[in-house]
Amino acid sequence: MDATELLVCIKCRKGQDIPADDRRPGRALYDALAACALPEGVTLRAVDCLQNCDHGCSVALRGGNRWTYVFGNVDEASQADMLIEGAALYHATQDGLIPWRARPEHFKRNCVARIPPLTFSDPETTP
Amino acid sequence: MDATELLVCIKCRKGQDIPADDRRPGRALYDALAACALPEGVTLRAVDCLQNCDHGCSVALRGGNRWTYVFGNVDEASQADMLIEGAALYHATQDGLIPWRARPEHFKRNCVARIPPLTFSDPETTP
Repeated sequence: MDATELLVCIKCRKGQDIPADDRRPGRALYDALAACALPEGVTLRAVDCLQNCDHGCSVALRGGNRWTYVFGNVDEASQADMLIEGAALYHATQDGLIPWRARPEHFKRNCVARIPPLTFSDPETTP
Repeated sequence: MDATELLVCIKCRKGQDIPADDRRPGRALYDALAACALPEGVTLRAVDCLQNCDHGCSVALRGGNRWTYVFGNVDEASQADMLIEGAALYHATQDGLIPWRARPEHFKRNCVARIPPLTFSDPETTP
């Protein structure tokens, strides 16, 4: 199975005023994930900004010829385990599409966008 | 310059009830773009769903080792030219970051998310 990256926006303020020297919520989420045992094949990476600033904290899953998914509204204090579970489910797919029933509830309701893999079939567009 | 893809969600309903046999706003946007002269190096591609359904119509720009950008709230009737201009500006960059002042106003205010290129520098995350 091609490697999966779990990307975490570490600049996320969650719309709050954060003193310059304080740890931001996005960074707290990254730290919480870094303290977890990651599923085999999944790499955690920090990103400076995923520009989903109105719905932070935000993460993305990508890798191989899978659809890339961006999820928002992640709670840094309580949802690291959910992300780890979701990343494992994502990594187990060929195309990035976790079966709906298996998908974490948070993923169902907080998908911000998805991007097709580099190789994908064009849908029918003849008039 | 590496090729750029302009991806258009053709399933977008813009939150409206659309009769099954009617052309959806997303498809109308695709058709409007398909009728335009595309900048050199830019390919137009239809996508079944970018899952930015609360803020449609939606498009993405990607290609080469650039950041991928997703933009929402595109008006299918009036903004094809803006997207063509934005795609040309994006394609002219190495990294996908259109200089702020040159960025179309719509891009400034309607970026849904961005995804780093496959190769990117990890920000500092040592404690």
